[in-house]
Amino acid sequence: MAKHVLLINGPNLNLLGTREPHIYGSTTLSDVVASAERQADDLSIQISHFQSNHSGALIDRVHSARGEKVDAIIINAGGLTHTDVSLRDALAGVAIPFIEVHVTNVHRRESFRHHSFLSDKAEAVIAGLGVYGYTAAIEFVVRHLRTSELARL
Amino acid sequence: MAKHVLLINGPNLNLLGTREPHIYGSTTLSDVVASAERQADDLSIQISHFQSNHSGALIDRVHSARGEKVDAIIINAGGLTHTDVSLRDALAGVAIPFIEVHVTNVHRRESFRHHSFLSDKAEAVIAGLGVYGYTAAIEFVVRHLRTSELARL
Amino acid sequence: MAKHVLLINGPNLNLLGTREPHIYGSTTLSDVVASAERQADDLSIQISHFQSNHSGALIDRVHSARGEKVDAIIINAGGLTHTDVSLRDALAGVAIPFIEVHVTNVHRRESFRHHSFLSDKAEAVIAGLGVYGYTAAIEFVVRHLRTSELARL
Amino acid sequence: MAKHVLLINGPNLNLLGTREPHIYGSTTLSDVVASAERQADDLSIQISHFQSNHSGALIDRVHSARGEKVDAIIINAGGLTHTDVSLRDALAGVAIPFIEVHVTNVHRRESFRHHSFLSDKAEAVIAGLGVYGYTAAIEFVVRHLRTSELARL
Amino acid sequence: MAKHVLLINGPNLNLLGTREPHIYGSTTLSDVVASAERQADDLSIQISHFQSNHSGALIDRVHSARGEKVDAIIINAGGLTHTDVSLRDALAGVAIPFIEVHVTNVHRRESFRHHSFLSDKAEAVIAGLGVYGYTAAIEFVVRHLRTSELARL
Amino acid sequence: MAKHVLLINGPNLNLLGTREPHIYGSTTLSDVVASAERQADDLSIQISHFQSNHSGALIDRVHSARGEKVDAIIINAGGLTHTDVSLRDALAGVAIPFIEVHVTNVHRRESFRHHSFLSDKAEAVIAGLGVYGYTAAIEFVVRHLRTSELARL
Amino acid sequence: MAKHVLLINGPNLNLLGTREPHIYGSTTLSDVVASAERQADDLSIQISHFQSNHSGALIDRVHSARGEKVDAIIINAGGLTHTDVSLRDALAGVAIPFIEVHVTNVHRRESFRHHSFLSDKAEAVIAGLGVYGYTAAIEFVVRHLRTSELARL
Amino acid sequence: MAKHVLLINGPNLNLLGTREPHIYGSTTLSDVVASAERQADDLSIQISHFQSNHSGALIDRVHSARGEKVDAIIINAGGLTHTDVSLRDALAGVAIPFIEVHVTNVHRRESFRHHSFLSDKAEAVIAGLGVYGYTAAIEFVVRHLRTSELARL
Amino acid sequence: MAKHVLLINGPNLNLLGTREPHIYGSTTLSDVVASAERQADDLSIQISHFQSNHSGALIDRVHSARGEKVDAIIINAGGLTHTDVSLRDALAGVAIPFIEVHVTNVHRRESFRHHSFLSDKAEAVIAGLGVYGYTAAIEFVVRHLRTSELARL
Amino acid sequence: MAKHVLLINGPNLNLLGTREPHIYGSTTLSDVVASAERQADDLSIQISHFQSNHSGALIDRVHSARGEKVDAIIINAGGLTHTDVSLRDALAGVAIPFIEVHVTNVHRRESFRHHSFLSDKAEAVIAGLGVYGYTAAIEFVVRHLRTSELARL
Amino acid sequence: MAKHVLLINGPNLNLLGTREPHIYGSTTLSDVVASAERQADDLSIQISHFQSNHSGALIDRVHSARGEKVDAIIINAGGLTHTDVSLRDALAGVAIPFIEVHVTNVHRRESFRHHSFLSDKAEAVIAGLGVYGYTAAIEFVVRHLRTSELARL
Amino acid sequence: MAKHVLLINGPNLNLLGTREPHIYGSTTLSDVVASAERQADDLSIQISHFQSNHSGALIDRVHSARGEKVDAIIINAGGLTHTDVSLRDALAGVAIPFIEVHVTNVHRRESFRHHSFLSDKAEAVIAGLGVYGYTAAIEFVVRHLRTSELARL
Repeated sequence: MAKHVLLINGPNLNLLGTREPHIYGSTTLSDVVASAERQADDLSIQISHFQSNHSGALIDRVHSARGEKVDAIIINAGGLTHTDVSLRDALAGVAIPFIEVHVTNVHRRESFRHHSFLSDKAEAVIAGLGVYGYTAAIEFVVRHLRTSELARL
Repeated sequence: MAKHVLLINGPNLNLLGTREPHIYGSTTLSDVVASAERQADDLSIQISHFQSNHSGALIDRVHSARGEKVDAIIINAGGLTHTDVSLRDALAGVAIPFIEVHVTNVHRRESFRHHSFLSDKAEAVIAGLGVYGYTAAIEFVVRHLRTSELARL
Repeated sequence: MAKHVLLINGPNLNLLGTREPHIYGSTTLSDVVASAERQADDLSIQISHFQSNHSGALIDRVHSARGEKVDAIIINAGGLTHTDVSLRDALAGVAIPFIEVHVTNVHRRESFRHHSFLSDKAEAVIAGLGVYGYTAAIEFVVRHLRTSELARL
Repeated sequence: MAKHVLLINGPNLNLLGTREPHIYGSTTLSDVVASAERQADDLSIQISHFQSNHSGALIDRVHSARGEKVDAIIINAGGLTHTDVSLRDALAGVAIPFIEVHVTNVHRRESFRHHSFLSDKAEAVIAGLGVYGYTAAIEFVVRHLRTSELARL
Repeated sequence: MAKHVLLINGPNLNLLGTREPHIYGSTTLSDVVASAERQADDLSIQISHFQSNHSGALIDRVHSARGEKVDAIIINAGGLTHTDVSLRDALAGVAIPFIEVHVTNVHRRESFRHHSFLSDKAEAVIAGLGVYGYTAAIEFVVRHLRTSELARL
Repeated sequence: MAKHVLLINGPNLNLLGTREPHIYGSTTLSDVVASAERQADDLSIQISHFQSNHSGALIDRVHSARGEKVDAIIINAGGLTHTDVSLRDALAGVAIPFIEVHVTNVHRRESFRHHSFLSDKAEAVIAGLGVYGYTAAIEFVVRHLRTSELARL
Repeated sequence: MAKHVLLINGPNLNLLGTREPHIYGSTTLSDVVASAERQADDLSIQISHFQSNHSGALIDRVHSARGEKVDAIIINAGGLTHTDVSLRDALAGVAIPFIEVHVTNVHRRESFRHHSFLSDKAEAVIAGLGVYGYTAAIEFVVRHLRTSELARL
Repeated sequence: MAKHVLLINGPNLNLLGTREPHIYGSTTLSDVVASAERQADDLSIQISHFQSNHSGALIDRVHSARGEKVDAIIINAGGLTHTDVSLRDALAGVAIPFIEVHVTNVHRRESFRHHSFLSDKAEAVIAGLGVYGYTAAIEFVVRHLRTSELARL
Repeated sequence: MAKHVLLINGPNLNLLGTREPHIYGSTTLSDVVASAERQADDLSIQISHFQSNHSGALIDRVHSARGEKVDAIIINAGGLTHTDVSLRDALAGVAIPFIEVHVTNVHRRESFRHHSFLSDKAEAVIAGLGVYGYTAAIEFVVRHLRTSELARL
Repeated sequence: MAKHVLLINGPNLNLLGTREPHIYGSTTLSDVVASAERQADDLSIQISHFQSNHSGALIDRVHSARGEKVDAIIINAGGLTHTDVSLRDALAGVAIPFIEVHVTNVHRRESFRHHSFLSDKAEAVIAGLGVYGYTAAIEFVVRHLRTSELARL
Repeated sequence: MAKHVLLINGPNLNLLGTREPHIYGSTTLSDVVASAERQADDLSIQISHFQSNHSGALIDRVHSARGEKVDAIIINAGGLTHTDVSLRDALAGVAIPFIEVHVTNVHRRESFRHHSFLSDKAEAVIAGLGVYGYTAAIEFVVRHLRTSELARL
Repeated sequence: MAKHVLLINGPNLNLLGTREPHIYGSTTLSDVVASAERQADDLSIQISHFQSNHSGALIDRVHSARGEKVDAIIINAGGLTHTDVSLRDALAGVAIPFIEVHVTNVHRRESFRHHSFLSDKAEAVIAGLGVYGYTAAIEFVVRHLRTSELARL
């Protein structure tokens, strides 16, 4: 049975590629999703995508992932990364391994972006690889799912 | 006229009894609500319940409580406890006395759970009594409503 | 073509004039909007208004302002002022100059209200002028739009 | 064999009901003990009580609880809550589950009352329920002793 | 009898419009005073102005305002905003309501400019409206003097 | 009826005049008490004295002062000044005005001596006047008892 | 030759007895000076007085004390207590022993008043004794000048 | 004349070997004292022992050591290590050199155990050597008493 | 001309795969280097590797990279990440873009590992992808070298 | 045209050479000025000097330097270094390059002397060279004025 | 087979006995090593010694200890104690139990010496016993190796 | 006999004049050394120079200075300034007076550069004078060696 990966993007990532291109680049979220779907085809896995600017909707989506037998979540929580304990609790509550991705190198930005409520619950954290960060996260999940790195979860 | 108590549960409490049972036990939210309704019947009070993973929906619900002549609110705000000034403002704004309940002993957990934006506005705080915490809160509200403890509000 | 100003009010401001009048006064949000519309007529500008208790809805509204050619935003983000990085990112992302308004003097209140996630991105900050703060913000925007103060944005 | 609960009150609680009634109410410590004894009779458990203003005497009493086969301790440590590592060590040392009770909502008071040296070792924490807090703690202990919540100790 | 407003400017504001125009704009202090006097004429109030680079002189001026029956003070204390407890005490001591004005948005500048020793004693705080901030403050004082907002002083 | 002043000395003050004379001088506690009694005679007031190294004994003594109609307490709590919330609570609980005295200037010593749990509840604080501090405190109490300064208690 | 004591009062103390009498009482600075002069006569010492709202003038006055053979300074620096390193340096520079006096108990007030730049250089600190604090300071200086307590300076 | 060493154990050390053996090991306090007495015989010194859970009793014991010509104190103050300024003052006040011993490595435990009020007054600090820590301390005291290391006291 | 990537590993990474395999996995540094070389061959780039436990040697190696026309550095600085300003200065000094890689998710470990002296100078940061982190970094560098992301360096 | 250097000394520096010679040495301010004037002659530049204990007077002097075409300022602000934002603003406002000089090594003194409000606006900072610090600053200004180091101002 | 203990001394300990003898005493490192070798002979164990001022060399030495079947390390890391995460990682990485020794009582010295990056990984910490600290550490290791205290490693 | 000055440069200063010229200028380290040697000739003193990127090598060099009768050290420790307690200990250990030099004004740079582990042990600190800082340090050492400023060492 094909592995199922859920890709989640939080607030403002719908603007990707259209706002502040000197920071975020010019690739749009549609481009990211299309690219992830091609990669999923190549790797023979299933991929789903969800974006919302509403914390509650993201939490609802994480909850429903449990029933859908999602094997791993790749999440760019945007600004909620730094403020949302409830999203953290949702991810920990469904007990699905997840990778935290940031398009930009958050360590180069405001100091409040240096703390994440997700990182210590995440399998891994990628920041600053641009939209390639999503690609690497998918690759990692496929290579290592059911291996010792994830087995301890 | 029967007293009216509103029971509010915040993000992730819909998972109660189904996630991390070593932390939260195995009683579900339905069990909690059913138990609260039986207790309300025994005490001849009216009880309402609301759960949402959306901060905004919780605030809307708190606002509407004022029009419904709710006498007291019992709230487990989940992760919003530690992050949501707006929910605090809603509770203070409607000026209905409320009890803050946590199923687990938050003081045994991560340090960011040791601060609550609700506690200094709450009548009382209960943490770690498991789902019995809701029961005790209802009992307290019924015993003490209109007494000197609440009268000062 | 008439300038377009978007007035945004965040959580609990729907209660304005009805809760804690010793803090917030007795003018309601409807009064504020009506007054702003009259002022807009006098100044021959277009004004829109949006209020929500949902962070996500506020962010969505900010995003759509870009397509509507909004020239400036006047925002009272309520409790989200102190907690919502995503709202900050939305405002920065659409690159529309904005003025931060608070009805009360937040510096007289709890210490957690002394920090704002919006202020360093805002053109200006007004606190404690009561509902006249909205009036002054509109006046400022009309006087200074396209001037050197805003041109640098 | 009847369960044995030890109720401990620390410094200044001998003044309960006689000092600062606007903060602590007018129920005296004698009233609290008499009420707890009636509750114990109803629940067919054994209850003991001890009050002292001396940290050392409280520690001695905790130590002797081990020889007396006390099943649970309910403790209101008063001001020692915030300062006494030795009392914490005594409670942890005898390995008897305990509930931390405060008559007032300590989170509404001075900031140094927001930290407790007992809470992360306690089963549960109750604050602000007035003297009903003792009642709820006894009820909780009787309901849940030997259940999964306490078994992990 | 005409209302009397005292406009006070602290250290370095004599340089307004001549130093760092990219920060402070090009309007001079004379322009500000002339504009305020025209506004006062329009509103039929009396306005006085005082500028000094000497903390002691500013305190002396605040003291003498009491004898002159000044109804409100509008003050831009410059760098003293962040360091001068004595100026705060003078303003609180004479018990004349005052508005704190900053030409620039101090929240965009060095972190030591984010704290003010005046704000929690002020009626209101305006920052970043440029020299229009003085205009808005005068307007506010005239509109609201003797109203409920100021009556509580 | 003669006024009654209770003089309390905490841990290690029994060593006064015998330990570290370069810090504490060479006057013994007996000298202090004898001097205070002579002063009491001169002023026609009653004075009592108590010294203990036991926090609990000091609290007990404060409690019993209420029944003895003590009009004011003068207390040098020694090292407990910086650590003992329970002693603070005892003094606040009996609601007898008290003066905090230190023989040495604690501000010249270790930084942990710069905070006192008593000072914000005390009428006044004297530090560094040597044993004359006790004398001045008695003088103050006699001069000002029943005056406006104490009346607000 | 008569001892010479210099009494210095800093910013806003010219308002003593006329502002915020619920905090500072109703004795004026003239009363304080007259009372100190009578006390000086009784004790056969010389006393001088200086008040200014200007930090620089206070420093100049401290400097000139050295040439006048002042034996001790009694200083209430008002708000400068908490902010003025230069005044501290002036007092340390002239090497004249000084007593720090506050009319109110600063520990009951805002937290920024709990730190003094003078205290660790002062012989002693008196706070909250009202205007009697000046009297006690003079008494102390006369009793202890040239004794072991001051000799170490 | 034989050297005299006083061994002091603070709160909860009477439980040594009986509580939490995975932390503290299984040697009892009686074993420790018996072992220390045998060591004292071998080294021809006098040893005394005192244990109490009462801070005041420990201070009293330290005070009386001065009259008994104790040459050195070895102290395990248990939880008081981290909280008791008065015990620190007692040890400094009697001016007897002392060694601070902890059975466990306190640096592996809760962060509040990383600060000691005794260490900067102690000759030396030993933590984590188990009960051998007492043995090493006695050996050190005997070897180095009257040597340059202690002579500077 | 083939691109040249320098892979640097800092202190203790020579132990990779042999120490604490539950943390670091069982792949050795030789495996990592062999894998990187195969990847380089596939991508037709040149790769060099250097490992040292000496900060100075790492700095020397970074310096010499400038002369060797290295296009990008991939560095896992081990424990030096958190402590070594000089290594940071070396990387910034040679002005070669670099990627910071950690085998483990440092955010799950001790708090001192949450700060890096390299991150705000790095292009990107990868943590917790295990040894695949090196692979992803190489892939990223090859894909994006000379693109807009790196061009701004 | 000869370069013009302005030498400014702040509070207490009029005491130089006469107070605390073990800290500040025995060279007086007159000596410093005379030496600077001889050095100016040798270097064919113009030098002016100003000393005041008044912050406001120093700010006024800085302002007037702009009209006098001063090329560089050398300033020892004494205690104002650590407290005076307004002086900082004056120096930044006139946009004349300045060197910060301290006679003593402030890093060896109280911790509040380790922060300067001037340093990040200064060209350079010299501390602990004694009065030679002024000499070196003049030398530096003459050597480097109009060079690349200053040109970026 | 004889147990093997490795004694490591870090930066500046080659100066032992020759620098700052009032702090470190007059025993040289050669004396320490000779004494340790005599003690090793007496106890029939093998001892090795290594000193370096180079962090990298110390890490290399720790690594090679694993191949040499070292049973325990006794380490005085000098100034690296407070700064070197890599040395900590090396000790943790080779999984050999170690004792942390300091010749002086570091708690009496600068505050930055109060934190150690080694202590929470060490078996025990000895500070202030002078060079006898090494002797006690060896004695401890021999007595307790293979006992319950070390077995848990 | 000629005085002997040792000039030490730490990590990355070998890159001086070749990296980041907008920060460090274009003078190379060779230029600095050549200039210092010419200055030494002029002043008839002996000068030695040492640069290394290895902390251990710098410590070794400082140690050997003692045997070489070096009279003073001038050190630019680069990034080690902010992190290296061992280098501090080496300088303090050999008891040779030293001057701390930084080419740039470190107070204008990252906040971690505002603390130095060397400054409170140094004679003086020079920052931001560019390479002239070395020249001034040599001049100072020659002028003041054996004078009162250095004699106290």
